[in-house]
Amino acid sequence: MSASGENAEKRVTAAVLVIGDEILSGRTQDTNLNAIAKFVAAHGVDLAEARVVPDVAAEIVAALNALRSRYDYVFTTGGIGPTHDDITADCVAAAFGLPLHEHPEIMAQMRARWGEEPNAARRRMARVPEGGTLVKNPETGPPGFQIGNVFVLAGVPRIMQGMLTDIGWRLQGGAVVVSKTLKVEGAGESLIAGPLRAVAEAHPELTLGSYPFFGGADGYGSNLVIRGRDPAEVERVMSELIEALRAAGIERLTPVEA
Amino acid sequence: MSASGENAEKRVTAAVLVIGDEILSGRTQDTNLNAIAKFVAAHGVDLAEARVVPDVAAEIVAALNALRSRYDYVFTTGGIGPTHDDITADCVAAAFGLPLHEHPEIMAQMRARWGEEPNAARRRMARVPEGGTLVKNPETGPPGFQIGNVFVLAGVPRIMQGMLTDIGWRLQGGAVVVSKTLKVEGAGESLIAGPLRAVAEAHPELTLGSYPFFGGADGYGSNLVIRGRDPAEVERVMSELIEALRAAGIERLTPVEA
Repeated sequence: MSASGENAEKRVTAAVLVIGDEILSGRTQDTNLNAIAKFVAAHGVDLAEARVVPDVAAEIVAALNALRSRYDYVFTTGGIGPTHDDITADCVAAAFGLPLHEHPEIMAQMRARWGEEPNAARRRMARVPEGGTLVKNPETGPPGFQIGNVFVLAGVPRIMQGMLTDIGWRLQGGAVVVSKTLKVEGAGESLIAGPLRAVAEAHPELTLGSYPFFGGADGYGSNLVIRGRDPAEVERVMSELIEALRAAGIERLTPVEA
Repeated sequence: MSASGENAEKRVTAAVLVIGDEILSGRTQDTNLNAIAKFVAAHGVDLAEARVVPDVAAEIVAALNALRSRYDYVFTTGGIGPTHDDITADCVAAAFGLPLHEHPEIMAQMRARWGEEPNAARRRMARVPEGGTLVKNPETGPPGFQIGNVFVLAGVPRIMQGMLTDIGWRLQGGAVVVSKTLKVEGAGESLIAGPLRAVAEAHPELTLGSYPFFGGADGYGSNLVIRGRDPAEVERVMSELIEALRAAGIERLTPVEA
């Protein structure tokens, strides 16, 4: 697992590259970004950016090169199946300037599973850039792979999530970010903004956010979130925020989970 | 509304820029990208890229400038509330090199609504880059705005969707993309890949995609989607695809909606 707490100052970053026309056309609601965000956060890695690109080679290569040079890790999702529109392996190899080869372990798995030589479509799924290592797939289908700081994962959420179980041990994270949330009811953000800003400006090392809600059973108000790498400090600043809100006449305050 | 059909060759593009730590931390599952994807598609505009960036001014400005120079339209979501972490208006103004001013119409709406001079937090929400026009907000809170080819919308999904109702008339779209979906059951993508590729290669002007499913009530198989701007052609190529799949011995084929 990640080396949590070893170095609270070190910020380790990741980006997600979602590959697929189906997300941009609106046909599919992406959920992989959210799953990866939670996964890397638990390993002390900050998700710093995400991009969604179509099934177009030049776009995938350009985005991957921009992200892999800038962040510690990149997770791609989608485009690793056997059909003509599955071009992720080709694009990752092109981005790294590496040839693709049929990985002997995937070929062996396929032969064992189907008892016959894989057809052309299946062999597409055995292609990995030279030097790439496999990412186990505990669900259906062939594995993903890692090359350099890039993890190439499936697009189907259940399969993508299965692959994450073989990624945690590869991440060298920093201190895990912890958060505390305070639910403020019956006061809009315009009232909350003053005390919230004062506390945020006094603690620039923490992130303070406000996420309003309207209507529904909860009435209206906002969830105020404090995030940081030192749990005791987050706790202390939460008390300070509660005090500042009370001093401004805002009374319906409830600490909540998540 | 959009000038559908006027020019079937013209491709009009858009990008989405999701602004918000809460998406990257995993706290919130974004749904705005999907809603905007469907919305622009219905207006003959192709969503060509999306990015998610944190509440960091330099990141927002850089992403916005990259996207607005490359695509016909850009939609931003999030960061237009009254709190210190709402910096979208500042960043959009910086990207365009324009000053912000308190828009008189928003100030008048606020005075009318609350019967008093808006406080500092509310006045933050009245700030629009000079020359920007307002995007009506039929829900709670102040309007969004348009400056150049950029639409600046709320992050709360219900409010964002309300604002879209004041955007359609501003879009000059091309021909609307239509799609047909064929559900293939009991055959994996490895079997489908050959005939699918043959049909895709014979019709490079169309987009053919394969979206596999596994388990559940439907067993396994794949949804094959043909997308294009000429409904008659999409229909014709779907017949061709069905024929090609049948010739390969794949029989459980059902045209489906969406």
